[in-house]
Parts: sequence; C-alpha cells; structure tokens
Amino acid sequence: MTTAEIIAIGNELLIGQTLNTTTHWLCQRITAQGGRVDRAVTVRDDLNAIARELHGALRRAEDAALDRDATVVITTGGLGPTGDDRTLAAIAAALGLTLAENGTALQMIERRYNELHEQGLVDQPGLNAARRKMGRLPVGSVPIFNPVGGAPAVRLDHDGSTIIALPGVPKELQGIWEGPLSDTLAELFAGAHVEREVVARCPDDSVLAPLLQDVVDRHPAVYIKSHVQAFGEGRPEIRVTFSTTADNHAEAEQAVGDAIADFRQTMNDAGLDASD
Amino acid sequence: MTTAEIIAIGNELLIGQTLNTTTHWLCQRITAQGGRVDRAVTVRDDLNAIARELHGALRRAEDAALDRDATVVITTGGLGPTGDDRTLAAIAAALGLTLAENGTALQMIERRYNELHEQGLVDQPGLNAARRKMGRLPVGSVPIFNPVGGAPAVRLDHDGSTIIALPGVPKELQGIWEGPLSDTLAELFAGAHVEREVVARCPDDSVLAPLLQDVVDRHPAVYIKSHVQAFGEGRPEIRVTFSTTADNHAEAEQAVGDAIADFRQTMNDAGLDASD
Repeated sequence: MTTAEIIAIGNELLIGQTLNTTTHWLCQRITAQGGRVDRAVTVRDDLNAIARELHGALRRAEDAALDRDATVVITTGGLGPTGDDRTLAAIAAALGLTLAENGTALQMIERRYNELHEQGLVDQPGLNAARRKMGRLPVGSVPIFNPVGGAPAVRLDHDGSTIIALPGVPKELQGIWEGPLSDTLAELFAGAHVEREVVARCPDDSVLAPLLQDVVDRHPAVYIKSHVQAFGEGRPEIRVTFSTTADNHAEAEQAVGDAIADFRQTMNDAGLDASD
Repeated sequence: MTTAEIIAIGNELLIGQTLNTTTHWLCQRITAQGGRVDRAVTVRDDLNAIARELHGALRRAEDAALDRDATVVITTGGLGPTGDDRTLAAIAAALGLTLAENGTALQMIERRYNELHEQGLVDQPGLNAARRKMGRLPVGSVPIFNPVGGAPAVRLDHDGSTIIALPGVPKELQGIWEGPLSDTLAELFAGAHVEREVVARCPDDSVLAPLLQDVVDRHPAVYIKSHVQAFGEGRPEIRVTFSTTADNHAEAEQAVGDAIADFRQTMNDAGLDASD
C-alpha cells in the first residue's frame, strides 16, 4: 500500500476566501487508484511553515517505511512567478538542496508562453525574469510539463519518498495529474479500492454503536463508518459504508463482503434490519 | 491577534467521500471575527494521529506565545457515541489527563435525548452506555450545550491555549458556534478584519509579479494576493485582494487603504490600470 500526505499552500484557503476543492479531488483520485491518504494539511504562503510540514511528512515516512510500499508527499500551490510562491524554495530548504535553473523546465516554460502568446492569452512570448523563477528547481528535481498553465510541476525522489509539487489552480493540477503524470501515478498507487454502502434501519446511532463496534473489531482491515445526519432530517436510516484498499480487487472485495455479511447477521440477531 | 489551528478528524474526509466544508466555514468565521487561522489539518479517526496534531499545535502556541494574544485549537469530529469517535480520548492522551464522566455533560446529553425522543427523532429517551460515552471528558473540561445534536462540545484551557472540540456534523458545529459558544468566541477573537479587491488590467501575471512584489515588500502587514485564473478563461483582468487583521477596524482600514493607493500608483507609473 502506498500512503500519501497532501500539503496545500495558500493564505486564500485559510482566510476562507477559497474552498479547498483540490485536496478533496486528490483524496478521491488517490483512493480510487488504491492509495491511502493519511493526512492533509493547509498552511500559509510561508517558507518555514511549508518546510516544517515537509519535514514532518518525510519523518513519518521514514518511521513507517516497513509498513508501506512507498510514501508520496503532494504539495499544491505556490509554484507561480510571484514572490509569495515559495513552495520550491521551501522544498529545497527542507531537504538541504540548492535551487538552480533547470534547462528542461525553462524549455517547457518558454514553449508554454509561446503557445499562450500565439493564442492571444499573454502579451509577451518567451521568458522573462518572473517566468524564469518557475524554472528554478531544487537540484535533482524532474520537471513535469503543465499542459494548461505556465509553471511545470516537479517530481523529486528523496530517501524512498516521492515529492510531487503541483500548481494550486484546479484546472492545471487536474490537467497534469491526468496527463503527463498519469503513468507515474499508476506506478506509485498500484492497489485496488472497494467501497460498498449498507442502509441500517435504526434511527438512533447510540443504539447502533455497540453492534457496529463488534463488527469493526472483527474486521480491522475494513474501514466501517456510520454516517450520522443531523437529527430532524427525517430519515429513519443510517448509511453505513464499508471500504478497504488492498493489493488487488479480489482481495478488497473479499474483505468488504465478509464485513458486510457479518454486519447483517449482527443486526438480524438484534432484531434490526440492514440492506443494500 | 489571536491565532487558530483547526484539526479536522474523519476518514471520510481523506478518502474523498466528504468535502471538508466545516474547515472552510470556520476559516471564514474566524477571519471575520478578527482571528488568524495559521494551519488546518485533516487526520484519520486515529487516536495517535489526533494526539500528535494537538501536541504540535500546543508546542507552536508555546513557541509563539509572545507574538500573539492567544491560541485557539479547534477540533471537528469524533465526539459521537461510536467507537471510532476518539477525539476526547486523544485530547486526554495528548495532555496527560484522564477521562471521567462529567455531571454537567451527562445532564446536557440526557436533556437532549429526552427532547429528541419527544420529537420522535430517537426511539429511547435518556441515557444509555453509548450516550454516556459522550459525557466522558478530559478532566478540567467545560461541556458546551449542543442545541442541534446529542454530543456536547468541549472547552479546555491549557497553558494559555484554548482547545475547543466541536462535532463534525456541519449543522451541529454551526449551531454551537453561533449559539452557546458565541460569547466565548467574541472574547477570544477580539480583532477586526478588512478585505478589499482591486482589478488589475494585465493579462499576464508574470508581468504583474515584479510590480506587485514591490508593493508587498512595502506593506508587510497587509496580505496581498493576485488571483491567477487558468489561461484561456478569456478575461484580461487579474483580481488582486488586499486584506489585513488588526486590533480595530480603523487601523485595518488604514493599512489596506495605504497599500491599495501604493498599488494604483505603481501600476499607473508602469502604464497599467488598476481599479475597484
């Protein structure tokens, strides 16, 4: 199983200006591809804060190296040309690397700005000082072409972990994830995720709780969650989801199926009903 | 200035099942009330992970105690009756406290379940083992009435920081925030936030970048952000927001107004236009 941590960067997220939909999108994609997101954090455009989170993620990866196939640390945001875009400097600082202009990255940026100029989307083609900044990468990085915006994404392998720095603009992030990065991701997250839902007819989750707990205890590899709704929403049902990630689909199906069968039996024994 | 960290708890957030709107809502509210959110993290329903994040937040609060009025650590989720609701146990573990039944909390829970029963929303009134679990608080906690759901929120003061544990269900969290918790919050976040937007006519943020950077450098207390859009969205404007938090409204208005005047002058000097 490959584990991921997400570090979202941007004051606009923490002052409540922008809803962080990119972290949610990444969680859905990584889960569907068979990876597990352990943690997602949002920090301000602050070099020390970003570096601190990277340090923490890499330390946890080291501590858990024997329990997982690999660790992927994904950053979003802070790759642009402006002075408050500090992600690459923070990665360099956290890993003790220097920043240097990367020839491949500069070519990518130049090509994109020429294309954007031809499309009438920017006034000037080619490179300038601010655009060159996006090509200054931590030494050892591999730039990844950005088919939507100007700033390349960055991949950097470090002590068994893989750091992937993505832009914060959702369309750019998604374009890179589904385009130039897709082969890398298929390699990194090579598992299977299965999720199924059961509806328990039981209007009070404090009655369901002890029954469900027994099932949870018997199936530690399956994530079982009862979805409480605010009281008064008028439905006498509680949705219970069963999900797991395993090396392959059959294994995941088996584990989820066993847990659901056990849950149904437990509910029936208590005179309650649970159905798909 | 009072600083906040948010710790959102729940596997459903990290597998991408639920979009984390509560963190966004809290960021908006805290900012509007004059506080500053420094960091927001999401972790799984895992006691050690929750305790680790609490430790980190309290350590940062201690390190920065001289630079801020107070630190508020807000947790969301994990207060319910089921076994995967582990927030209170994690708070106790992180702070070296024991959990014990709190008489006031039990009264609140009993009262709520009697009300919910009268409304026909739960089968049984009063307390049972699972409901009593929601009344087991870290010693020294103050329970806060939940006017919407069953589980009380919890306030715990610790070494100059204030921990507030809220339910994860948005309606419950919002009901507590705007109801029984509002006086406490007005005391904790006693500042003023001002935000204004300016539109720069400049289709390329790599041209805007160096101009904006000069303004940013001259106004360190104002958060200035250019909102890049994906290329091709067809608007030749870049929105630039100016915001700050200060002890009072006049001070915040002054700082933002000065920065905007400087930005307009800088743009005009470069032959570019910036308007409201």
